[in-house]
Amino acid sequence: MMPVTDSVFLLGETREHPLHVGGLQVFRLPDGAGPDHVGELHRELLTHTDISPLFRRRPRGPMGTPGQWVWSDDHHLDLEYHVRLSALPTPGRVRELLELVSRLHGSLLDRHRPLWECHLIEGLEDNRYAVYTKAHHALLDGVSALRLLERSLSTDPADTGVRPPWSPRRSAVEPPKRTAPAPFARLASAASAVRDVVGLGPAVVKYVNQAFREQSATLPHETPKTVFNVPITGARRFAAQGWPLARIRAVGAAAGATVNDVVLAMCAGALREYLLELGALPDKPLVAAVPISLREGAAVGGNAVGLILCTLATDLDDPAARLTAIAESMRRGKAFYRGMSPLQITALSAIPFAPLALSLVPGAVRITPPAFNLLISNVPGPSAPLYWNGARMEGVYPVSVPYEGQALNITVTSYAGSLEFGLTGCRRSVPRLQRLLTFLEDSLATLEKELL
Amino acid sequence: MMPVTDSVFLLGETREHPLHVGGLQVFRLPDGAGPDHVGELHRELLTHTDISPLFRRRPRGPMGTPGQWVWSDDHHLDLEYHVRLSALPTPGRVRELLELVSRLHGSLLDRHRPLWECHLIEGLEDNRYAVYTKAHHALLDGVSALRLLERSLSTDPADTGVRPPWSPRRSAVEPPKRTAPAPFARLASAASAVRDVVGLGPAVVKYVNQAFREQSATLPHETPKTVFNVPITGARRFAAQGWPLARIRAVGAAAGATVNDVVLAMCAGALREYLLELGALPDKPLVAAVPISLREGAAVGGNAVGLILCTLATDLDDPAARLTAIAESMRRGKAFYRGMSPLQITALSAIPFAPLALSLVPGAVRITPPAFNLLISNVPGPSAPLYWNGARMEGVYPVSVPYEGQALNITVTSYAGSLEFGLTGCRRSVPRLQRLLTFLEDSLATLEKELL
Repeated sequence: MMPVTDSVFLLGETREHPLHVGGLQVFRLPDGAGPDHVGELHRELLTHTDISPLFRRRPRGPMGTPGQWVWSDDHHLDLEYHVRLSALPTPGRVRELLELVSRLHGSLLDRHRPLWECHLIEGLEDNRYAVYTKAHHALLDGVSALRLLERSLSTDPADTGVRPPWSPRRSAVEPPKRTAPAPFARLASAASAVRDVVGLGPAVVKYVNQAFREQSATLPHETPKTVFNVPITGARRFAAQGWPLARIRAVGAAAGATVNDVVLAMCAGALREYLLELGALPDKPLVAAVPISLREGAAVGGNAVGLILCTLATDLDDPAARLTAIAESMRRGKAFYRGMSPLQITALSAIPFAPLALSLVPGAVRITPPAFNLLISNVPGPSAPLYWNGARMEGVYPVSVPYEGQALNITVTSYAGSLEFGLTGCRRSVPRLQRLLTFLEDSLATLEKELL
Repeated sequence: MMPVTDSVFLLGETREHPLHVGGLQVFRLPDGAGPDHVGELHRELLTHTDISPLFRRRPRGPMGTPGQWVWSDDHHLDLEYHVRLSALPTPGRVRELLELVSRLHGSLLDRHRPLWECHLIEGLEDNRYAVYTKAHHALLDGVSALRLLERSLSTDPADTGVRPPWSPRRSAVEPPKRTAPAPFARLASAASAVRDVVGLGPAVVKYVNQAFREQSATLPHETPKTVFNVPITGARRFAAQGWPLARIRAVGAAAGATVNDVVLAMCAGALREYLLELGALPDKPLVAAVPISLREGAAVGGNAVGLILCTLATDLDDPAARLTAIAESMRRGKAFYRGMSPLQITALSAIPFAPLALSLVPGAVRITPPAFNLLISNVPGPSAPLYWNGARMEGVYPVSVPYEGQALNITVTSYAGSLEFGLTGCRRSVPRLQRLLTFLEDSLATLEKELL
């Protein structure tokens, strides 16, 4: 039998709301790689037909009782279906790569098969290739998926033994979400906390709503409705870029703010420019939902997590003043959690469930005011450069899930001295998503100019 | 309001049964084409933002009454979404092309947008490129879609004015299925006749069943159950190849059989080899459903069509004997129709609806014996070579719709002295579909050897 906490992701999925997470990795071709290097890698991967149980699992149902899904083992797994070779049209810039990833992320996984796909992508300019991997949220959450990909990588450039993520050769490849997650792992996306909540019952949900309102009351303004808080369609846009951690750290040090505060300030400045350009900037400042670890300084240990409602101060014209307001809002949010009991904190981890719950109620998004405008997650990643079969991984970007009423998601991860931004949006509601990358850079550059 | 005859294709569609039709065109690059020729063509196409009503139409609903879909006009049509540039991985053989088309044909169209996509595909070896076009059956049937594509082509190689199929510049681009169809147009796929039937009511359906049984009784055997007559999944396999019409005509002339008889004999021989290799050839011969025009020699004029149940004589080892049996079965089928009244013939055009109707009843395929094993259509096409923007069209192949219980479809069209076979199958139920191409050639070669 499939746990309710997994099957909710199957029940909640429609053509408009695919509930899969993705990861995009960019690799530099090793020295001396021939023109068919990626094709050879693909053929080599197809020989790894020994597949760990997680990757053989496919859903069956609903059987009898609505929602009664079961996991079963796929005895006829068709590896060529899951592991695909694609190519970029000329000139093979990052632009063409993002276009392809947007398309691949917008199509539904086939429920007759194990719920994952791995796409090798050749034709990326500057001697690079890419890997886009996609897994259903019922199988893996976004961070667990990224971690699983990293486990098939090596810190040794000379290590040329291909280890596909689906290979059972390393015992560590068992379902990561069944084991103790990393501090942020459960917060990979707005919906991951549902797992804790479904068992808690309506009383707790009521309590959560109340606690949520209390936290909202700490904000200076009500959350405005924006172009992002609308019903969504199934097609996606994806944009990604990395920024040197050193640049972000320097700004944070100068302003007395954390790295995460600066990430939020970059997003705030970029969203302000983007909405100004669309003529759609609300008077009231945008509110981001920001997952944080509560281990440090909080009453509970372990994997306690909280979701801070943080103002993005998009009503302020001055970038440094925005950063100050954001840092202050984050401090207030953390203080809010510090005063809470362990039970209260557990209940609050239900908050990220809200967007998914709303997406199950047709029309709800049109009438319900948003609790926040978008989710911005910052997930720590590996600090040392990693290699796959001799190819250096130059970047790794989370491809996340927009929800009904939450048409844009920003997820950031760190890797080898860089902060890697992945922006995933509904194609219809978030036009010209690429512009946000330019505005993120502008935003950081303005902060540097003002503060350094 | 959308006619019931269109909306049935939206209601009948599930993740496992996408109801869109496709066409694959292969072009030779014109002399002196640069490496970015296809990219330039793509950019040029995106400037044609004047779009005919058919291509702007998108479905809305169901509203209130279940099944009450309406067509509405998409005022924000996002042409970049519909017209896409893709590339083949190296070495860019036909094999890589068919793999890509299989994937593209397996994903659902986005119902929030007009129900069509056009994919330009670069990187095909031997100085060629391809165009794969996909439209929902509610919008266009397969043959109408092919005809629409042909209308944007020219018989003049020097005509380099790009005319996209969605451009309203030619008045002829209005919905082809609303105008008088070509003799076979309504039989593009097994479901196209539903349009006539839905309005006819249960009494006629009952009559159809009876007439169908009568025709079945003209067959020497019951239709066996095969690996093709199973529930299907959403992923597709597509294979395509052309054969010179002259070769097929020569065999027909030697055997006193029609071109279509030889096409059926090629299919019969190929299917026999394929099923033998899988160890799945039934003792009883396979039965194909073959759409025919009834204008010639029949009691009625106009667009009367019939569906002949024809034995494929796959129990016979000798190819010439198979061809004789097929030709005789087709003659008997035509004679059956010749004895019928116009009303009877109209009612019989409902038969192709059967697979779609069955696909709406969960589990029906597992318990109902198949009326036929697969649909084999032969649709006349243009006889002169056609050009698009200076590029000669070297081949055009129909990409059709498998149904629940009908996992394989073979549709053939003629073009410039060639018969172009398009084989579309469910990826899970029809493994190694490419092998059928080899077997089709073997089958024709054996007939040539024996008869010429």
